[in-house]
Amino acid sequence: MKIAVLGGGQLGRMLALAAHPLGLGVRCLDPSSKAPAGAVAELVVGAFDDEVALGRLAEGCERATYELENLPIKAGEIMASRMPLHPSLQALTVGQERVAEKSFFRAHGIAVPDFVSVDAREELESGVAKLGCPAVLKTRRFGYDGKGQFVLHSPSDVDEAWVRLGGWPLILEKFVPFSRELSVLAVRSAEGEIRRWPLVENHHVGGILIASIAPAPKLDATLEAQAAVAVTRLMEALSYVGVLALETFQVGDTLVANEMAPRVHNSGHWTIEGAETSQFENHLRAVAGLPLGSTAAHGPVAMVNLIGTPPPTEAVLAIPGARLHLYGKEPRLGRKIGHVTVLAQSAAELGDRLERLARVVPVPDAAVASAHG
Amino acid sequence: MKIAVLGGGQLGRMLALAAHPLGLGVRCLDPSSKAPAGAVAELVVGAFDDEVALGRLAEGCERATYELENLPIKAGEIMASRMPLHPSLQALTVGQERVAEKSFFRAHGIAVPDFVSVDAREELESGVAKLGCPAVLKTRRFGYDGKGQFVLHSPSDVDEAWVRLGGWPLILEKFVPFSRELSVLAVRSAEGEIRRWPLVENHHVGGILIASIAPAPKLDATLEAQAAVAVTRLMEALSYVGVLALETFQVGDTLVANEMAPRVHNSGHWTIEGAETSQFENHLRAVAGLPLGSTAAHGPVAMVNLIGTPPPTEAVLAIPGARLHLYGKEPRLGRKIGHVTVLAQSAAELGDRLERLARVVPVPDAAVASAHG
Repeated sequence: MKIAVLGGGQLGRMLALAAHPLGLGVRCLDPSSKAPAGAVAELVVGAFDDEVALGRLAEGCERATYELENLPIKAGEIMASRMPLHPSLQALTVGQERVAEKSFFRAHGIAVPDFVSVDAREELESGVAKLGCPAVLKTRRFGYDGKGQFVLHSPSDVDEAWVRLGGWPLILEKFVPFSRELSVLAVRSAEGEIRRWPLVENHHVGGILIASIAPAPKLDATLEAQAAVAVTRLMEALSYVGVLALETFQVGDTLVANEMAPRVHNSGHWTIEGAETSQFENHLRAVAGLPLGSTAAHGPVAMVNLIGTPPPTEAVLAIPGARLHLYGKEPRLGRKIGHVTVLAQSAAELGDRLERLARVVPVPDAAVASAHG
Repeated sequence: MKIAVLGGGQLGRMLALAAHPLGLGVRCLDPSSKAPAGAVAELVVGAFDDEVALGRLAEGCERATYELENLPIKAGEIMASRMPLHPSLQALTVGQERVAEKSFFRAHGIAVPDFVSVDAREELESGVAKLGCPAVLKTRRFGYDGKGQFVLHSPSDVDEAWVRLGGWPLILEKFVPFSRELSVLAVRSAEGEIRRWPLVENHHVGGILIASIAPAPKLDATLEAQAAVAVTRLMEALSYVGVLALETFQVGDTLVANEMAPRVHNSGHWTIEGAETSQFENHLRAVAGLPLGSTAAHGPVAMVNLIGTPPPTEAVLAIPGARLHLYGKEPRLGRKIGHVTVLAQSAAELGDRLERLARVVPVPDAAVASAHG
């Protein structure tokens, strides 16, 4: 079976690497001829709204999926008219727009920060008055890695916020005093079976995910239960098939949903070596209608993104338990060009190994401290 | 760094799948345009003695290796004249010829079955008289998967043995009353560091490897120590860089060497999910001059070859801990077209899972029984 993938970035590349052993073919569509997936999968070069390119992507494929959510809905519709598209068009639509997304969460009993929709300066002013400060103003669409966001610390920040973001469809969210960011990673099969990996603790710097630790240290059953309920509700409401990532804030003992990604996710890269079945393999199994594999973790694992410049390969590989993943991308400021997974038998060992990694690759201190348990 | 690989079969394919995340390129040379590696690596189609094809293979590569040992030595020489070739030409030469191989083992204090070289019928007769029966007559070169072998149960079998194999350079080996077959899998870095995976128990049917269990059940320290000494001596004597597999017979508490493969090996496929670092990744790390990764096993693992016909994918993937590896080869009688790895937390669980696999894919009873521990 051949699977059509909208997008050919590192996620498409890792999907393709997982597809070959399963006997599944992958063909990706990407605007760039240098797309990372091209080295390991068929690549159609074209824009996502180019119907001829979409036709070439579809030819001979039996299932379609996507590895990025900032796609023209039309591209999803065209693929869905020719073959089953997973996750569903509804998941893609909801995941693209922050007001729709948070309204959807709320409608399904999932806690979200208070928010208001902002399309005019007056709405921003009334929103700030209503929600109080700090509050976060975000574009409703196309935000990623912290782009298109502005934090208002006081009502006097309205001027600057409006200068920066005014004119776009916006959302103003009450700032949540969270203790940490956790992501919920789950997969649902075509038959409705849901499996969930352990909760993942994420460390962002400047809005970009830098490190993940899995299973998230200091978990209690309450958090895992809330995660289970939230993804089950979302996946069932969306007739979801494939991997879903739900980014949340931990506030006290409560998970507050921030956003969802209807696709394999950076906070799930640790599953390649760190779980019995990776997010990439389980996404493909789900999309292809195959039984899901176990989502159990092998032990404590950390994942560190490589941003911008190539890592010192030898120094990284000399660290016990370290596994390197390069995406075949040209180095560029702020660009995710790879990641390192660090495996260990215990939290203490993971902490030590992550400390060693931190000497050769930037790792937030908080992530190292947290890995120590 | 790009690595040239002589051969583009499933071993080349799995090397390439391991190479991409490390940021290493792979280009394979294979006589077939349908070679399995072609889906995931650059493929040069040509004969191994075609100097133009070897030139195209070499272009832009910095290291060379091979994924099969039945190669013209000339091909190895041509590659070695242009870049470092790992494992060494000597390893390739020794591994190709059974008399040279067993003499080399013996010269380095590694136990082998008694043997004589046979080039004429009289030598076969005198050999049978000297070694006694049962004895195994084998071609000295190009044997694999039990091909080119004949067991003599009594001196009266000389006629049939000679009709079948006479005319080839042969070796007659005393039959060893072994309790099981174990393979030693190790890797040596360019700096001389040696790491060894746990011993693997192999189950052959008709000369073809069908199942491996790792770590081999019922191991004692004596066997592991003998394995360590044997590969250390071999690798050091051959200035070896890369993965080496040494197939042995367990006779009482002694390992008796049968043959070596100077390359990644079928009995090491379990390492992809079952060990901290796979044989493919560690071979590449060694060849590329990078530090080696840990060879520790995650737990009890079984590997079952898929021979001839495609497996029932859904039934295989429905087994907990089962991971499928298809090679993209056309089904054909007796052909290895893929393998299944089964992971478990305990021997009992591995046995149960292997039993379940045995209902949908042929697995020798002895392997299932042994997995139970």
